[in-house]
Amino acid sequence: MGINKNSIIRLSRYKSVLTRLRLQGTAKVFSDGIADAVGVTAAQVRKDFSIFGLSGNKRAGYYVDALVERLNAILGKDEVQDVVIVGAGNIGQALMKYKGFEREGIRIVAAFDIDVAVCRDRTRIPVWPLFKLSRFVSGRRIKIGIIAVPENAAQEVADIMFKSGIKGILNFAPLRLRGPQGSVINNVNLEIELENLIYFVNLSAPEDNSTFLNRNS
Amino acid sequence: MGINKNSIIRLSRYKSVLTRLRLQGTAKVFSDGIADAVGVTAAQVRKDFSIFGLSGNKRAGYYVDALVERLNAILGKDEVQDVVIVGAGNIGQALMKYKGFEREGIRIVAAFDIDVAVCRDRTRIPVWPLFKLSRFVSGRRIKIGIIAVPENAAQEVADIMFKSGIKGILNFAPLRLRGPQGSVINNVNLEIELENLIYFVNLSAPEDNSTFLNRNS
Repeated sequence: MGINKNSIIRLSRYKSVLTRLRLQGTAKVFSDGIADAVGVTAAQVRKDFSIFGLSGNKRAGYYVDALVERLNAILGKDEVQDVVIVGAGNIGQALMKYKGFEREGIRIVAAFDIDVAVCRDRTRIPVWPLFKLSRFVSGRRIKIGIIAVPENAAQEVADIMFKSGIKGILNFAPLRLRGPQGSVINNVNLEIELENLIYFVNLSAPEDNSTFLNRNS
Repeated sequence: MGINKNSIIRLSRYKSVLTRLRLQGTAKVFSDGIADAVGVTAAQVRKDFSIFGLSGNKRAGYYVDALVERLNAILGKDEVQDVVIVGAGNIGQALMKYKGFEREGIRIVAAFDIDVAVCRDRTRIPVWPLFKLSRFVSGRRIKIGIIAVPENAAQEVADIMFKSGIKGILNFAPLRLRGPQGSVINNVNLEIELENLIYFVNLSAPEDNSTFLNRNS
């Protein structure tokens, strides 16, 4: 892949900060303001922006509106992205109710579950039996899926998703999924996130600076 | 910090894989088996193990039981770790019901919320009004907290937590929290995780290999 993965992850973070500044009515911002909110150096912000052709300068700063629009275009957020969830348990339900996604142009259009007892189709986001997944995804040409099923079902669900045309999976099951060529998998393992935190808390001496375990810190 | 952050994150992943192997009754494992499940090279596994004094060898392999025990000791998982959650909304409730934590020796002992309407103390995990947080945390000497409140309340909640003696926060609010010296913050931003996935799906050409957005890949 030509573009550095971490620079894209930073762009997402810049956009997140800038979107909030825009909501607060801020018109212009300097690279050090963005840097500070994201936790990188101002030089890194300027470098990332210049790689992606985002203009502005050290003295006059950047226009927030224009930056957000350009970042949305770069990050493919010009149009609403439809997403399905498999697994309507605790995590799945929480994600279905999570308001942050819509604000970012991400729409969860349906959920699927193997347990028909949790299925319902009169809710804002319908929950359908798993066997309907394949037809729905291929019919609607959906490219993005979220997996929130138990570990022992996750790879099987992923295989069905990929066969139906899904290209990218955000996986909350605590294992490393495998996908076909061209697929993208983002594993978010909540146990490991908490474990790492505990480890570093037990390790850190009082005189340390605060430690960030962010992906790109 | 003397020890490399990514090596610790990898140790957590090794432990996760090995714990599962043990549950399946596997007695011995080779570095390439672990490497494959985690998505790193076998040389990397052997290097990480040797740094932390985990013995075994290329030909005879490693004893799963012994490895898990040593990893638990290194990662500070010998004793149960008590954790509090602030925010009993969708994400908070899902985390309270999440079974993966207990399996890893992590016990959520109480949740707190500003909204007294969601508070209840006869549940397995009690939900108390926020004003009780400080006394509970300092009285029980709790070191780890999870934040699952809206963005605009998160920093204020974090400040209260740190003042009460919390040393590490797993933060699900979509902003970068600040903490005092010696604190550890692990930000998990679900919007950004999904956005990055969408970006890479839109980017990838069919002939690419599958892409992993894991923290340490």
